[in-house]
Amino acid sequence: MFELSRDSAVPLVDQICERVTQLVRRGQLTAGTRLPSIRKLARQVSASPFTVVDAYDRLVARGVIESRAGRGFFVTQRRLSAPLVAIEALAEPSDFMSLAQLCLAPSADIVAAGSGFLPENWLLDGAAAGVLTRLARTRGSQPWLPCPAQGHTELREQIATGLVQQGVAASAANIVTTYGASQAFDLLARILLSPGDAVLVEDPGYFVLFEQLRAHHVRLIPVPRHADGPDLEALEAACRAHRPRVFFMQTLVHNPTGSSADPAHCHRILSLAEQFGFAVVEDDVYGDLYEGPAVRLAQIDGLRHVAYIGSYTKLIGPSLRVGFVAADAALIGRLVERKVLSVLSGSTLLECFVAEVLGGGRYKRHVEQTRARLARMRRDARLALESAGIEFEGPPGEGMFLWGRVPDAVHVDELVRRARERRILLARGALFSPVEGCVQWLRFNVAHSTSAPLVEFLRESLRAA
Amino acid sequence: MFELSRDSAVPLVDQICERVTQLVRRGQLTAGTRLPSIRKLARQVSASPFTVVDAYDRLVARGVIESRAGRGFFVTQRRLSAPLVAIEALAEPSDFMSLAQLCLAPSADIVAAGSGFLPENWLLDGAAAGVLTRLARTRGSQPWLPCPAQGHTELREQIATGLVQQGVAASAANIVTTYGASQAFDLLARILLSPGDAVLVEDPGYFVLFEQLRAHHVRLIPVPRHADGPDLEALEAACRAHRPRVFFMQTLVHNPTGSSADPAHCHRILSLAEQFGFAVVEDDVYGDLYEGPAVRLAQIDGLRHVAYIGSYTKLIGPSLRVGFVAADAALIGRLVERKVLSVLSGSTLLECFVAEVLGGGRYKRHVEQTRARLARMRRDARLALESAGIEFEGPPGEGMFLWGRVPDAVHVDELVRRARERRILLARGALFSPVEGCVQWLRFNVAHSTSAPLVEFLRESLRAA
Repeated sequence: MFELSRDSAVPLVDQICERVTQLVRRGQLTAGTRLPSIRKLARQVSASPFTVVDAYDRLVARGVIESRAGRGFFVTQRRLSAPLVAIEALAEPSDFMSLAQLCLAPSADIVAAGSGFLPENWLLDGAAAGVLTRLARTRGSQPWLPCPAQGHTELREQIATGLVQQGVAASAANIVTTYGASQAFDLLARILLSPGDAVLVEDPGYFVLFEQLRAHHVRLIPVPRHADGPDLEALEAACRAHRPRVFFMQTLVHNPTGSSADPAHCHRILSLAEQFGFAVVEDDVYGDLYEGPAVRLAQIDGLRHVAYIGSYTKLIGPSLRVGFVAADAALIGRLVERKVLSVLSGSTLLECFVAEVLGGGRYKRHVEQTRARLARMRRDARLALESAGIEFEGPPGEGMFLWGRVPDAVHVDELVRRARERRILLARGALFSPVEGCVQWLRFNVAHSTSAPLVEFLRESLRAA
Repeated sequence: MFELSRDSAVPLVDQICERVTQLVRRGQLTAGTRLPSIRKLARQVSASPFTVVDAYDRLVARGVIESRAGRGFFVTQRRLSAPLVAIEALAEPSDFMSLAQLCLAPSADIVAAGSGFLPENWLLDGAAAGVLTRLARTRGSQPWLPCPAQGHTELREQIATGLVQQGVAASAANIVTTYGASQAFDLLARILLSPGDAVLVEDPGYFVLFEQLRAHHVRLIPVPRHADGPDLEALEAACRAHRPRVFFMQTLVHNPTGSSADPAHCHRILSLAEQFGFAVVEDDVYGDLYEGPAVRLAQIDGLRHVAYIGSYTKLIGPSLRVGFVAADAALIGRLVERKVLSVLSGSTLLECFVAEVLGGGRYKRHVEQTRARLARMRRDARLALESAGIEFEGPPGEGMFLWGRVPDAVHVDELVRRARERRILLARGALFSPVEGCVQWLRFNVAHSTSAPLVEFLRESLRAA
């Protein structure tokens, strides 16, 4: 039927699976055809019968062949897929979904200048597989047990320790783990908000959050974001006019501008929270990228008005989906109940993985290296983009994004569309505004924005306009 | 300061960490004390300086010591935890939360007779760590990439292949992955239901689902569950009286009764769905435990009225939290959008893990072995529980649960409370009824119900009454 290669690095089992699958795909083995018996094939290809048993088992699992009791193995009769419309092919996804999906599943050949993720070779410097092996070797059955509803105890203790080091008074009792910051937003919104509520958000701000809040049928009230933090006059006016329930904001390394609020702004925001009785959700997923001693709302406030969100998605890896909320114990209790009703619990395997990284002692150095690398890339990307005609305002920010302006003569939607035809992913500024302002802006991921095709494309397009 | 043991299996790095932590905990090294320099400690304990660097890094990460630039390492000054109320200590969690939390985080010494999980040594027969190692070795960067919003492509193809083998016409486009069946319920409820809607559920049925639905402020309409499926007359009457939007049901190996609906019931339910225009959510998380050829609603219906839920939590492991919905492509599109707004995406690491198990060829055998093992345990547990005075009605069911009746003279809430004092977790029948019926019933997990302390406790308590 076929021969196997003894010199190949591919195990014989996999070679058998591949050959049989090929023969079926090419129609050389048709549906219903009986395969050689295990002994016969083993003899033909000079392999052990165990190897053939293993290969046939895998082929059955993959639906290529089926076993009929007492009669042997046969090429499967059933269609392998049904003729239904593919979601991938659905026309015109909404703009928000389109960007989110492209960030989550970029083609290898795309220039991901609009992405929200760091390149995978930046993450843990390739050490992730080693962590996995250590996990398998040293933790026994621990990663396979159910996960407590509030989160893996060891991880919550590590998180609390990290917060205390940042000056935030928290213990493991003040932490609930979540599937990334996204689930933290969703759980908080489900607890704190009712349809029609006024909710303050930064303009510009994080686009997925806006859609999450809109799905709760609340009114989004924009608060302009400047280089030193949210606009305080606009914030106070919005409080008087709308009596908001919650303010969602980023103190440090704001997405998309890279700016950080100064301590005076933090103090004033908390005073307004006290005066007008709103809660602050402090999204700190980029806070580790801040250089130097930082002041966070959660630190000044002591978790009285502030629910603090952190995540390991940005620096350890997007495939992990481990984040958390730190808040007062009563709110944590409600979040745990809401989490059980949404997903039952977190994944012990994922939470042990993060615990292993945090406990290993290399994480701090990894964060410092990433910060230094981003500073270099920020400078290089800004120079390259400026040379192509993108304009930057105000002092340079921090973190992984640059927020750049396209000259007025350029039609940005058109630019984004043409970029996508050239396999370049750009993120439209209007997405980052709750009122669809910022139309002349783009958010650039600095790790992907020194690419020659991107810079060349922008230079041509901006010159033409 | 201390000496290390060269004969110990504990690595020197870990020994140093432990000793320093002990000295700090016991107050022998007080806050602010300077630690020996790296070279000095290395000389003192006869270890390499690299070992001490590694240990100090870990201690910094754990918050035990801190490094001050140019000056060395010092015992940390900050409090390690804040004096806040612990969620674990909150009084009187609701009954539902109490059972869910105890199932997710049982103490090692508890008899988990009310648990919904199989013992961890049943899961993959201890092969899970091997799968993890293989994943780390063979898949390169794949497990570390972001996960497409709809789910990992290879896994969705495997799921579709499995469904086609069960006669359900589905392709990868008909699948969206979820964090367990729980998230599938939540996403479907968020899309299909509005407050005030009438929703049909089985009585008895799955207690977490009832709470999830109640959180959406819908009206739960009970449909009695018998040994051959839902009560058809009651179902039709409920359709006429309430015009329900959705019927949530389990065709095969029903939780808690272990019963399976016959094909005639399936056909009739789908006719009613057509006539009264409701959707059916078919929860099939236990379907793999059914002996012999099975008929599922999704198979007869072809995913027109049915959204089908599957999960790998029960048979591969509760720490994974990987489930899925199979449905028509338009509904999948809406589920994907709702999933992005709830958690952004799944975890590639978890979904690759399941793909590795399903593709490995051993899964089918594992399912068969688990089924055989459960059949033995079911018989043994039933005999043991009957000997203690628990009554069983109707034909024996399948799967991992037994649904038993406590004699009328016994006060069940009291029994459950006293059991918990003896470190025995029982699951009250009333929890499994949307109308708090079934008060004299208990659900037993057969893998934990032949335990002598349980049988002894029941025998005594039931005899006394």
